[in-house]
Amino acid sequence: MAGGARDPGRSVTSRALAILGAFDAHQPRLTLTEIAERTGMALSTAHRLVGELEEWRALRRGADGRYQIGRRLWELGQLVPDPLQEVARPWLQELFGGTGENVHLAVRDGLEVLYVDKVYGKRAVPIVSRTGARLPMHPTGVGKALLAFEPGWFVSSYLSRPLERPTPHTITEPGRLARELTQVRAQGYATTHEEMTLGSCSAAAPVLAGDRPVAAVGIVVSSRRVRELPRLVDPLLAVAARIAGDYRAAVSRPFP
Amino acid sequence: MAGGARDPGRSVTSRALAILGAFDAHQPRLTLTEIAERTGMALSTAHRLVGELEEWRALRRGADGRYQIGRRLWELGQLVPDPLQEVARPWLQELFGGTGENVHLAVRDGLEVLYVDKVYGKRAVPIVSRTGARLPMHPTGVGKALLAFEPGWFVSSYLSRPLERPTPHTITEPGRLARELTQVRAQGYATTHEEMTLGSCSAAAPVLAGDRPVAAVGIVVSSRRVRELPRLVDPLLAVAARIAGDYRAAVSRPFP
Repeated sequence: MAGGARDPGRSVTSRALAILGAFDAHQPRLTLTEIAERTGMALSTAHRLVGELEEWRALRRGADGRYQIGRRLWELGQLVPDPLQEVARPWLQELFGGTGENVHLAVRDGLEVLYVDKVYGKRAVPIVSRTGARLPMHPTGVGKALLAFEPGWFVSSYLSRPLERPTPHTITEPGRLARELTQVRAQGYATTHEEMTLGSCSAAAPVLAGDRPVAAVGIVVSSRRVRELPRLVDPLLAVAARIAGDYRAAVSRPFP
Repeated sequence: MAGGARDPGRSVTSRALAILGAFDAHQPRLTLTEIAERTGMALSTAHRLVGELEEWRALRRGADGRYQIGRRLWELGQLVPDPLQEVARPWLQELFGGTGENVHLAVRDGLEVLYVDKVYGKRAVPIVSRTGARLPMHPTGVGKALLAFEPGWFVSSYLSRPLERPTPHTITEPGRLARELTQVRAQGYATTHEEMTLGSCSAAAPVLAGDRPVAAVGIVVSSRRVRELPRLVDPLLAVAARIAGDYRAAVSRPFP
């Protein structure tokens, strides 16, 4: 690359980062050949950079010979200062304890929801949201709760794109979605019924700091128990309000 | 550097990684000058590499002008395949639900314990273990539970070093620690009384896969309630056994 010749440092760092970026939730384990293919690098370059990343424990070679992200990056990731997660966890805990249902916390990142925490027990329905996972906004409860409180231009821009349809129940018609978002905003919470995953329904409420939605709390139950969803709304709204209160208090404190 | 001249790629990647490594739990926010100082780099080099890391969202510049680890690394860290954490979480949940006490999960990493998960509510005593934190083994319940099940040569080597003493109650006399570890091994769990933190006591049990300790589960209560610790031991041992069973089942399954 011409840029590489002029500024070798730049291209080496970005190549090392590109190797880390080759790993994702769909492909958390990669062979050296796959890494080279995914990053468009020569095998010899990939080999050398992977070796350095492995030495630093940013990557780890598993028993199957494939590379995976190393625990050192997990540790670094835990340093991300997140007053939201910190204040939310005990309240998610209370919500789970009081209802026995799976509970999660998500934030908006770009046009997706990013699941940042999850509280679940042995008896509840398995949920699709892995901590660290990203999902589109319109088929998820947390996504609709967040979208409904975004400014109009953002919502219009979201709805103007072709929308994914993970199940036959996903609402993708822009007019219908816009009307639903107006209702979510009015009532203060969103619900879904098998829109992301067959067999699951959910309710979700935004965590509002001022009128800005900083996160959403969701609760997921089996769709066989959809009639129990309404009784979960009050505890859900109460917990979202508590998290919002603690969050506002946390961010108004000076840095430690 | 001579090595840098022969193999510029090597030194650039390691310098980028050294910048990430400059951040730790004690210093999660750093100025550019601090980064340069901590890594021994020229300010101009640090500036260029920080810029690249920021562009990739591995670093983020906070409102105070200091750099911090970016959410993209948190996301990458979530890809670390960890069957242990996956199977343990609902059981930690049950233990918290059944006892109302703070519960955590730790693994051994080198000569330290690394806290990998934590379940806590609004009412329990604050605990020192942050997820992602490292602590020495001998003053912590989880550390003693793990140490007691390590081979003799490991324990001898651990005890032969000068041992930290975070509180006046920390046991640092090697003979006394060795006797306590024998007892921990015999009874299957460890206890601490203000050995890591004044005001807290704990009980912890190893998660044994075969006779290898893969993790330890700990439960922490205020030292004012030390007399309640014995009644927590049975639920603690039951949960450690359940996690061990689920873990063995998970790792014996082929890769997905």
